[in-house]
Amino acid sequence: MSTIDDLKEAVFAANLDLVRHGLVILTWGNVSGIDRERGLVVIKPSGVPYDGMTRDDMVVIDLDGKVVDGKLKPSSDTATHLVLYKAFESIGGVAHTHSTHAVAWAQAGRSIPLRGTTQADYFSEDIPCTRDMRQEEIESEFEHETGNVIAETIGERDPLHVPGILLKNHAPFTWGRSPGEAVRNSVVLEEVARMGVLTEQLNRDATMNPHLVRKHFERKHGPNAYYGQK
Amino acid sequence: MSTIDDLKEAVFAANLDLVRHGLVILTWGNVSGIDRERGLVVIKPSGVPYDGMTRDDMVVIDLDGKVVDGKLKPSSDTATHLVLYKAFESIGGVAHTHSTHAVAWAQAGRSIPLRGTTQADYFSEDIPCTRDMRQEEIESEFEHETGNVIAETIGERDPLHVPGILLKNHAPFTWGRSPGEAVRNSVVLEEVARMGVLTEQLNRDATMNPHLVRKHFERKHGPNAYYGQK
Amino acid sequence: MSTIDDLKEAVFAANLDLVRHGLVILTWGNVSGIDRERGLVVIKPSGVPYDGMTRDDMVVIDLDGKVVDGKLKPSSDTATHLVLYKAFESIGGVAHTHSTHAVAWAQAGRSIPLRGTTQADYFSEDIPCTRDMRQEEIESEFEHETGNVIAETIGERDPLHVPGILLKNHAPFTWGRSPGEAVRNSVVLEEVARMGVLTEQLNRDATMNPHLVRKHFERKHGPNAYYGQK
Amino acid sequence: MSTIDDLKEAVFAANLDLVRHGLVILTWGNVSGIDRERGLVVIKPSGVPYDGMTRDDMVVIDLDGKVVDGKLKPSSDTATHLVLYKAFESIGGVAHTHSTHAVAWAQAGRSIPLRGTTQADYFSEDIPCTRDMRQEEIESEFEHETGNVIAETIGERDPLHVPGILLKNHAPFTWGRSPGEAVRNSVVLEEVARMGVLTEQLNRDATMNPHLVRKHFERKHGPNAYYGQK
Repeated sequence: MSTIDDLKEAVFAANLDLVRHGLVILTWGNVSGIDRERGLVVIKPSGVPYDGMTRDDMVVIDLDGKVVDGKLKPSSDTATHLVLYKAFESIGGVAHTHSTHAVAWAQAGRSIPLRGTTQADYFSEDIPCTRDMRQEEIESEFEHETGNVIAETIGERDPLHVPGILLKNHAPFTWGRSPGEAVRNSVVLEEVARMGVLTEQLNRDATMNPHLVRKHFERKHGPNAYYGQK
Repeated sequence: MSTIDDLKEAVFAANLDLVRHGLVILTWGNVSGIDRERGLVVIKPSGVPYDGMTRDDMVVIDLDGKVVDGKLKPSSDTATHLVLYKAFESIGGVAHTHSTHAVAWAQAGRSIPLRGTTQADYFSEDIPCTRDMRQEEIESEFEHETGNVIAETIGERDPLHVPGILLKNHAPFTWGRSPGEAVRNSVVLEEVARMGVLTEQLNRDATMNPHLVRKHFERKHGPNAYYGQK
Repeated sequence: MSTIDDLKEAVFAANLDLVRHGLVILTWGNVSGIDRERGLVVIKPSGVPYDGMTRDDMVVIDLDGKVVDGKLKPSSDTATHLVLYKAFESIGGVAHTHSTHAVAWAQAGRSIPLRGTTQADYFSEDIPCTRDMRQEEIESEFEHETGNVIAETIGERDPLHVPGILLKNHAPFTWGRSPGEAVRNSVVLEEVARMGVLTEQLNRDATMNPHLVRKHFERKHGPNAYYGQK
Repeated sequence: MSTIDDLKEAVFAANLDLVRHGLVILTWGNVSGIDRERGLVVIKPSGVPYDGMTRDDMVVIDLDGKVVDGKLKPSSDTATHLVLYKAFESIGGVAHTHSTHAVAWAQAGRSIPLRGTTQADYFSEDIPCTRDMRQEEIESEFEHETGNVIAETIGERDPLHVPGILLKNHAPFTWGRSPGEAVRNSVVLEEVARMGVLTEQLNRDATMNPHLVRKHFERKHGPNAYYGQK
């Protein structure tokens, strides 16, 4: 059975992967993971540079955000992560970055249209952009309300079929079955965001055949998946 | 005389070259090579990360796709490669990537117009984009039909004069006399795709003198070629 | 108490950071720092390549620009730095680069609109672009007048709330409490400039909720800041 | 007095610098240098990969293009280099690349407008794009006529004040007092080409004050230059 130390190691490695994949500069990102049995979350500390950060800098909190283990303050985005773990029971990790092209779509306030198989291999539809947050949401429990707006936008959809979102005027959040998968989905989102900007420049009216979308998504997901070694 | 082990080595090296040239992330690409005398194809295994992959992970199949040697499942795109080897007798290698700018043209559903000598040094005309696939093609033998649509699009042209294509809403396939040359043509296609996006931004109506096209193509191809050391 | 050698070391390291962050090529950038007690400024020498440059190549000048220590000529932009130190009493470092996307906005003669939290975390408003310089400003004490135009543009604003500017048809200047913070603000400015170009391509009319701007700026600045470990 | 071996070394190093600066992939570029006293030119061999190339692979030719020393064929662009050495007596090196953004302007058939000091520090005006070559020029001594079109376009201008050009539908050529300076001007041209594409996206009508152009050019060139350590 895996321990909290294993989860610390996984979350630590996933945070460093953000840097390795070029998704964060300075201190602009954070990854967390959850141990559902113990009801504990491990997350990056707030404002700590990736360079020099160690596994033991990871902060362990309970689902109310109370620090259970660790000498540092948890990420200022912790409340958002917690809402997502409560709203999406199937997920095991959450990642937040300011990756360049995903931010551009978020700043533009636009969802990323599903126009290619690269996106359809991971997302069964457009990558949604959230609505504007209301003044009272911003001025009360901001990070908590941020999580609520994400959950509201995903709504009844399967969060593993839409494993990421653009927070309007802000940046992406992604998730997955593990911290590593959450980061992988950040890599995918940034790359399809980049392909999407370029596609817009070449053909603003591009569309994709829905049969092709379903085919590609089902090559990798669900009972008839046949991609990979299983 | 070269052996199947030599071909495994060449295909393995060519797959790693995709990473080295920045043409693939995660597991988004595959290269194969053919031994025409033995009627055998060597191809990357499905969904296996490049990092840690060894020469012996390469899968040997016959022209019907039956695994002859190897412990892993071949690439999920294998059937597409096989159609191309049957349709284009002069080729010895096939490469598939999701390189960023080539995908953008594919998602836009547009051929890359021949507007410069960089492209004319390798392609004698526009780099074609395939038509939409029909629902019955998508829902039957999808990867096999994908190969058929590529072959249909190339038609009567010499595949070594148009050594690559954009699969609509998907990504590029390229080919060449060897696995290494197929990868080199993926490098060329991505770079001319990138130049092409930028050219569109500067002058949507740019054209190229057909005499200049022919001159550059013939500097490198055919009986009067004089580029290089031969 | 810190010494001039400490400041030389900090300025030297900050200049090399420009290269490490990809903000300068060739000799296109310079960083300085000030020792307010001693009334001395340390700055990069003019036209010296970063590769091979040593700490002792840094030039020490007084606030009139007279060389106090060092064998080399100070940066040709020295007079601009000096005006900024006199106009903005709270700053301890100044950086100048020709980073690609910031230059594009400067060449376009446009301020970078505040459209996302990435910018709002560091800048409380648009990143301003200066006015055209007048012929007599250009032909007299050009670098001194350049500083004056920057100070005029910032005007009554807190320079640490708008820690950078675009010099029209030229390039960015940034500043901060230290040479290192000035460089970090150059990193931020280049990244938000890049996000801004992409946002323009997706939605020229994008706007941002002013409540969200204030919230993000105040998460990191002022009495109620709660980002980081303090 | 410098020897032909010194020139070989300088030309060899300058060719590798093209790779180091990201200006060439595959075999898409070449640099030469001239020894005016001996009337000899040293140039990269044709189609030879940079990786593994040695100093002794450099080819020595006379001004008629006859190989004087070296086992390999000289670059297929040799005749263009020779025309430039004859037309521009002040130059000592020539570089040719297919760098991405410069090619985009060449494919668009557009000169790069002078809109910023980054360009004005090296070029006293727009970076010109050549006219279309005529069928008879293309089909006769193509590379020689290419040089003639470049010389015709520069015309009476000082080639060291306009140290590069865009060959329409092809790619840039640059030159300088030495092979190293020619490469440095290729670096500058690619960077200002990149800035120029981005500027176009932000403001197609951007202009630059001619007084500012002259000021910046004269900071680095001519009797009143004050940039650098001399």
